[in-house]
Amino acid sequence: MKDAIAELEAKGKAAKEASRRLAYISTEIKNKALTNIANDLLAKKKEIIAANEIDRREAKDSGMNAAMLDRLLLNSDRLEGIARDVMTVAALPDPVGEVSDMRTLPNGLVIGKKRVPFGVIGAIYESRPNVTIDIAVLCLKSGNAAVLRGGREAVHSNSALAGLVREASERAAIPSGAVQFIENTDRTLLNHLLKMSGSIDLIIPRGGSELQKFVSQNAAMPVMSGGIGVCHTYVDKSADLDKAVAIAFNAKVQRPSVCNALDTLLVHADIARTFLPRMATEWAKAGVEMHCDERAFAILKSDSSLKLKPSTSEDWGKEFLALVAAVKVVDSLDEAMEHITRYGSGADEAIVTEDYSAATRFLNEVDAACVYVNASTRFTDGGQFGLGAEVAISTQKMHARGPIGLKELTTYKWIIYGSGQVRP
Amino acid sequence: MKDAIAELEAKGKAAKEASRRLAYISTEIKNKALTNIANDLLAKKKEIIAANEIDRREAKDSGMNAAMLDRLLLNSDRLEGIARDVMTVAALPDPVGEVSDMRTLPNGLVIGKKRVPFGVIGAIYESRPNVTIDIAVLCLKSGNAAVLRGGREAVHSNSALAGLVREASERAAIPSGAVQFIENTDRTLLNHLLKMSGSIDLIIPRGGSELQKFVSQNAAMPVMSGGIGVCHTYVDKSADLDKAVAIAFNAKVQRPSVCNALDTLLVHADIARTFLPRMATEWAKAGVEMHCDERAFAILKSDSSLKLKPSTSEDWGKEFLALVAAVKVVDSLDEAMEHITRYGSGADEAIVTEDYSAATRFLNEVDAACVYVNASTRFTDGGQFGLGAEVAISTQKMHARGPIGLKELTTYKWIIYGSGQVRP
Repeated sequence: MKDAIAELEAKGKAAKEASRRLAYISTEIKNKALTNIANDLLAKKKEIIAANEIDRREAKDSGMNAAMLDRLLLNSDRLEGIARDVMTVAALPDPVGEVSDMRTLPNGLVIGKKRVPFGVIGAIYESRPNVTIDIAVLCLKSGNAAVLRGGREAVHSNSALAGLVREASERAAIPSGAVQFIENTDRTLLNHLLKMSGSIDLIIPRGGSELQKFVSQNAAMPVMSGGIGVCHTYVDKSADLDKAVAIAFNAKVQRPSVCNALDTLLVHADIARTFLPRMATEWAKAGVEMHCDERAFAILKSDSSLKLKPSTSEDWGKEFLALVAAVKVVDSLDEAMEHITRYGSGADEAIVTEDYSAATRFLNEVDAACVYVNASTRFTDGGQFGLGAEVAISTQKMHARGPIGLKELTTYKWIIYGSGQVRP
Repeated sequence: MKDAIAELEAKGKAAKEASRRLAYISTEIKNKALTNIANDLLAKKKEIIAANEIDRREAKDSGMNAAMLDRLLLNSDRLEGIARDVMTVAALPDPVGEVSDMRTLPNGLVIGKKRVPFGVIGAIYESRPNVTIDIAVLCLKSGNAAVLRGGREAVHSNSALAGLVREASERAAIPSGAVQFIENTDRTLLNHLLKMSGSIDLIIPRGGSELQKFVSQNAAMPVMSGGIGVCHTYVDKSADLDKAVAIAFNAKVQRPSVCNALDTLLVHADIARTFLPRMATEWAKAGVEMHCDERAFAILKSDSSLKLKPSTSEDWGKEFLALVAAVKVVDSLDEAMEHITRYGSGADEAIVTEDYSAATRFLNEVDAACVYVNASTRFTDGGQFGLGAEVAISTQKMHARGPIGLKELTTYKWIIYGSGQVRP
């Protein structure tokens, strides 16, 4: 363990060293590195797939379920998709160097804010090996060095991908040491990593809420974290019910295991009798279980084809991460927003309405990272938002809210051009 | 203590409640509140000065020194100055509601970022009572509710000022409860306040490094903190030596007790023999003690009018907060920047040079909140930067760097206008 800690510290130090030059390296070099990475992903498919097969064999032997095994899989198609995503990031504007708020003060000082990288970003993530590429590429393009620590189950795949990134970027004259990968997934070592605030400027956990919590509570450096996403969709009395059914269906069913999936459906009393049976029928086809408050239960209980349960107080504010939705009938937009204020987690909230004022009030008054009118909360995603990719999704209010893309991986410094000024 | 905790929690809850409406209240109402505050500061001079006299009498009785007593003083002139500062903030643009990055995605979703307040900002500060007004006014203008906890020595002044703010802002239709003041300065109560992450969104300590450290280590909510400022001024071989003497003199002497004052002077070897004696003579007049490395000491030692000491390893990276400067002769810009990288605290760093490339390299490569060419580091200040005032100065990299003004007290949310979109 002593050797492993020394190695870890050396990696942190090397990343810090590399980050100093990487901070002001040209966009051309960074894009060349990304192009090399994309090309190598295609050229080295065989090696990567071979490494991935070791992970999948071991995972299968240790009893991993089919869904998780699928998440772990890298095949030719997926590698091509990952390479395309890398080129999407290469095509995005470089946020580094952007100068804003530049102005001349009365004393002649010229001051402004210049966008700069953080320095070294540490990323702790789980399972899917493509995350290694996503994060490395976003860090490189934003001028940050990266210290990557993936999950144990993908260690061979991650290691192969990190090696590829290192080679491909050094070939483009990226300072060596800019991308570090920690193969040893020991917990003690992770704890040590979280204390390395001298070499890591920012840490980003990407994974389940337990990982997020562990990192937030133990990191000595600042953390950008997602926490949980308790998402509401409110169907207003003026909603277009076709849109409402489609949106709530998509928000719950398209991928129920993720943080931007619907947890609670709020329905205005005026349309509950028309809307709820239609919604319930569609959800029942997809196997959604509904935990209904008294009024919703009364409306739906006669239909024996539905999976219904009376709600309990624990259903409100719960992130289900499964084909389960809590359902509540409310008497007004205000009641819906009060419910969201009380039980929401500040992630993704939606209203379905054709009423201009209701839409405006919801957008203004709901305090969340992403507030939607007439769309599925499932869109909260760096790729979907046009940010190329994302390192993670933040539900905190400081610095970054929602998807963490290139710009969110940068900070700024004040630059001040003087001609001898002193403070009176 | 049980009652005091209940009262504290009630204040936090009231602030949270008020913050929801304050978040989208009109600029007109906020500016009216600020104007009322400025007017009341003039109209109620007598009461405030009377409250301040109680604090000063108690402070004097408990043996407070003259400099601290002066910091505590509120007189007619100072109240007029504070009122003028309030009107400066009223005249600044309202950051809330600004929409950026708005665009239409291929699927027709219209998305953008809207600037919004944090919610409730907690401020823990020391001594000077004008800070109560500064922070309350910046919070109100940026749409945030405030929970203010000042130092014990200014409690009567702070309480009078907070009462004035409350009355003046409620008269302008600011939601009642928006500005809360904690009179009880008990440590246990402070500890409890730092755990109230349900009602306080962000905490800002303003004061000495001990306070900053205590708050950072104990707060359950995010912290915007300054930490220490170890500031370097590097005099390049191409420097205009008149400017260099004036800048380094100002940076060290104008107010040595604050975080943006000069700590270490780095001097290029080529000009050290000409520059150092001139600098030392000026500093000596102001009583500055110089802790010199071997080369600087050799140049200066013959002048017995100087306060010289050989430097020790502890002088590098030390924040003196007094009329003491560490001095080192370096052989190149690179050596100067390496020294800053190693010993700087990421606050304020300056170069004095007439060389274009040296200036550019210093601005690009030095990683600090504020990087200066040919000006005194003493300018790092919200007022001096044209931000109106500041809540504090941040040396962290997340969210805000340098002075924390109106814009830095806000965050953003994504707003998404759909027409029925679902994720494929």
